[in-house]
Amino acid sequence: MAEGSSGKVGRVLVVAGTHGNERNGVHLLEHWRQGRENLATAGLSVAFSLGNPGAIAACRRYLERDLNRSFTPELLEGALHQEEEVRRARELLAAWGPEGVTPCRVALDLHSTTAAMGSCLVVYGRRPADLALAAGVQGRLGLPIYLHEGDASQCGYLAERWPCGLAIEVGPVPQGVVNATICRQTQLALETALAVLAEARQGACPLPRNLVIHHHLRSLDLPRNDEGIPIARVHPLRQDRDWQPMTPGDPLFETTGGTTLHWKPAQGDPAMVWPVFINEAAYEEKGIALSLTERKTWPADAGWGSALVALMQGTAPRTQ
Amino acid sequence: MAEGSSGKVGRVLVVAGTHGNERNGVHLLEHWRQGRENLATAGLSVAFSLGNPGAIAACRRYLERDLNRSFTPELLEGALHQEEEVRRARELLAAWGPEGVTPCRVALDLHSTTAAMGSCLVVYGRRPADLALAAGVQGRLGLPIYLHEGDASQCGYLAERWPCGLAIEVGPVPQGVVNATICRQTQLALETALAVLAEARQGACPLPRNLVIHHHLRSLDLPRNDEGIPIARVHPLRQDRDWQPMTPGDPLFETTGGTTLHWKPAQGDPAMVWPVFINEAAYEEKGIALSLTERKTWPADAGWGSALVALMQGTAPRTQ
Repeated sequence: MAEGSSGKVGRVLVVAGTHGNERNGVHLLEHWRQGRENLATAGLSVAFSLGNPGAIAACRRYLERDLNRSFTPELLEGALHQEEEVRRARELLAAWGPEGVTPCRVALDLHSTTAAMGSCLVVYGRRPADLALAAGVQGRLGLPIYLHEGDASQCGYLAERWPCGLAIEVGPVPQGVVNATICRQTQLALETALAVLAEARQGACPLPRNLVIHHHLRSLDLPRNDEGIPIARVHPLRQDRDWQPMTPGDPLFETTGGTTLHWKPAQGDPAMVWPVFINEAAYEEKGIALSLTERKTWPADAGWGSALVALMQGTAPRTQ
Repeated sequence: MAEGSSGKVGRVLVVAGTHGNERNGVHLLEHWRQGRENLATAGLSVAFSLGNPGAIAACRRYLERDLNRSFTPELLEGALHQEEEVRRARELLAAWGPEGVTPCRVALDLHSTTAAMGSCLVVYGRRPADLALAAGVQGRLGLPIYLHEGDASQCGYLAERWPCGLAIEVGPVPQGVVNATICRQTQLALETALAVLAEARQGACPLPRNLVIHHHLRSLDLPRNDEGIPIARVHPLRQDRDWQPMTPGDPLFETTGGTTLHWKPAQGDPAMVWPVFINEAAYEEKGIALSLTERKTWPADAGWGSALVALMQGTAPRTQ
């Protein structure tokens, strides 16, 4: 743990290695822990924690279950659930949670992906303070934002359990690989988020006029045969095209025999969708070949900034 | 198993999933098994086998030890060694080895890598039939060849235990990801190797005038601190530059603090080296950040072709 001299108000938790085979954040965190000059914290009090040390040691995403799907109230509070990752989720909250031994108001969770997502932010739901933080970073760096909500099959994210929090997601990088450029991108996004939080602690939260978000619609699996074996792969013209629009008839999958399967919207789908997390290695077991989003431009709301300022100045309630 | 009608002479074994998290070959093999038209075998009798089914099911490189380092005589013959992968190596040899139930003369082992190796061949040592096969493929496709030999810390490769064999290695692709382009590259390299072998069975083995090989010199690890933790990463100007020459003073690593570490040859190193397998995810645990090779041009030897023809026509001894 490295801390500034500014006391506990607005303390920020930075987590890396929530998935044990996402190595760039882990590599960076080891470095940041060695000296205060290694990360520009804008004067904030920052605590560092490895998310899943057991999985990091094994260089696997997780040991028993995905830690970043283990922060549901049902799992955290149920005595029945004793998997290693549920135990670790409780431990992280006991140490750094808003009511923990060293209470933190904000959690920034560092991730990487095998998909060509570039640097981006993942926001869970529409909490005003989260939207203010995301808008502040987007205003400075232009990063795209994936707004994840309303997917009953994917929930229990770490950042949701702190009053404010989001994931910084950078790719493409293979699992198990430390890549110098991915490290730089990760550090830049984190330092920018810390700068936004530090400004809010000073009482200011200037927002861009609009917030551009990519709103999660649903996920698509690969076509599979009766035995569950994939009979197609992501089409070469769709691979690495995260954040790029897809319209009906665009190539989507390619069968093992080389036939192109085109995108056909389901009832209720918008005319244009923006796929994200295309061919992320870890999602194969979740039955997700890619997720569909809809791009939306929202006018920034001054109430978002007020919420983040109140949180960082300690004038907001400490619970969500 | 899919077999041609041409009997057992010169039967070829194609293995995929020797490493369980290299998914492209596994995906292709499932497809090839479904019908003879799915792979151009040039009339050869081809047998297919998954290398490490247990590791494939777990989507891990291996369960207990690297299968593609488990084919040493010491491991195969020693009753002491009962790891899952040693057992599997014996099983593969019993089924498909040159003296196995369904004897194969040639083994083609399909691999992928997180390094930007493109499509290439890995040849183990200087057996004439291997060099003929590699030269034939290089003459048709121009693929680079990594000649691996004389490294006591890296031995026991699958292909070495068949009278002729090599690895087809394609990257970059993350572990656990099926990528349509990588699949096409893999299939093209395999079909080309089969075409060379089929010609040899017909008695012809036309070779290019020269064979260009990249001869393994030694491997380099990342700089580490006293606790064994890496204090540097592959330099951004070296990342993804596999097969490109490196001369003294070129950027090699970057410390966590951003300082560039330059390449300094050791005594005996040539003036120019060609790094390969730069930042391969699976080699971190082996202490290999990249391997150094020296590029050499060898005049093709007619004896190589004769050896391959004799092997494929069944006029060569069946043991090595």
